[in-house]
Amino acid sequence: MNARGDTTRKRLIDATTALVREVGYANVRTRSIAVAAGVAEGTLYRHFADKRSLFYAAVLDRNAPIVAATATLPSLAGRGTVLENLLEVIRKLAQLQEDLLPLEQAMIADPTLAPLRGERVQMPLEGPPHDIARYLAAEQSLGRVRAECDPTLAAISLLAMLFGLAVHPLLGNDLAKSELLGASVSYFVDGVGASATQPKLLA
Amino acid sequence: MNARGDTTRKRLIDATTALVREVGYANVRTRSIAVAAGVAEGTLYRHFADKRSLFYAAVLDRNAPIVAATATLPSLAGRGTVLENLLEVIRKLAQLQEDLLPLEQAMIADPTLAPLRGERVQMPLEGPPHDIARYLAAEQSLGRVRAECDPTLAAISLLAMLFGLAVHPLLGNDLAKSELLGASVSYFVDGVGASATQPKLLA
Repeated sequence: MNARGDTTRKRLIDATTALVREVGYANVRTRSIAVAAGVAEGTLYRHFADKRSLFYAAVLDRNAPIVAATATLPSLAGRGTVLENLLEVIRKLAQLQEDLLPLEQAMIADPTLAPLRGERVQMPLEGPPHDIARYLAAEQSLGRVRAECDPTLAAISLLAMLFGLAVHPLLGNDLAKSELLGASVSYFVDGVGASATQPKLLA
Repeated sequence: MNARGDTTRKRLIDATTALVREVGYANVRTRSIAVAAGVAEGTLYRHFADKRSLFYAAVLDRNAPIVAATATLPSLAGRGTVLENLLEVIRKLAQLQEDLLPLEQAMIADPTLAPLRGERVQMPLEGPPHDIARYLAAEQSLGRVRAECDPTLAAISLLAMLFGLAVHPLLGNDLAKSELLGASVSYFVDGVGASATQPKLLA
């Protein structure tokens, strides 16, 4: 695909994300997407087989910076505090997730968007749960996370909390900066953190 | 409304919940709801002004047992353990929420379902956050929850985690019984709970 094709593709993806946010996936027509992207509807179909393919391309596109955001977390083990490290990455995820949320919300609400059998769709949280679990395991080996904590379950719990805060209709206004997000992460860290009475290998 | 009218109303609400789960709110037609409920479409419109009103009636209906489930939680303060009390109520909520989830998911994904200005809609989590916050405050006064914990923020964090676990596309299979839910609640309780080194007024 040439540079012009890439630009068109990007504009179609951006228009899809914006329209899904405004009117919901089921109410979006490919015609409106083409209009919003400033291309002919035939051009849309040269890039994407159908509305669903376009939707999944948008999910992958919006997911990429989120996956990148947690990649370096495991290397921070033993530096700063567990709370600082997790809070920084969770706030960044909350901020980046704003672009992805309308798409994730469409996915959980519209049965026609469920991945088909055998279909390989990289889901939004695939990178982050693994990175956070690796980080927690590394902190655990340094004595800064309780020995009885399961890093994988803990990482999923933390991300589920972030996701719940972000998608709940009553919450989620500027979540990245909210007192609520800070409180939630600090309860979590108090929960998984090595208590003061447990030995710390690194002080 | 007579008993027969109540039955019809209930059947329309049940059909709405089932169809929203199957095909998504935006893809449901009132005609299909009437067919599924075994009534004429004109009968539907004698009970409800439009699809949206029917949807909100279903939300209220499915919400009622969830609100009831947490009502007695505050009275349990000081009995059993904080973990046992919270885990029991959270598992019950996870189970009851199965009926409400497709409706909540539709609400978060479809901008046309956002409450209108001035519209009073009792949201699914209105009872539970207050009940859980009151419970945590009562445990705090007994020294079984950390003094620095904000009961309201903590209650919202816990419910957000439950909501996130329930709605995330990769999770949520039989959540009420899952190891993941148990682990999440126990991290939360470790996080907000009075640590072993803090004084407990009741042992």
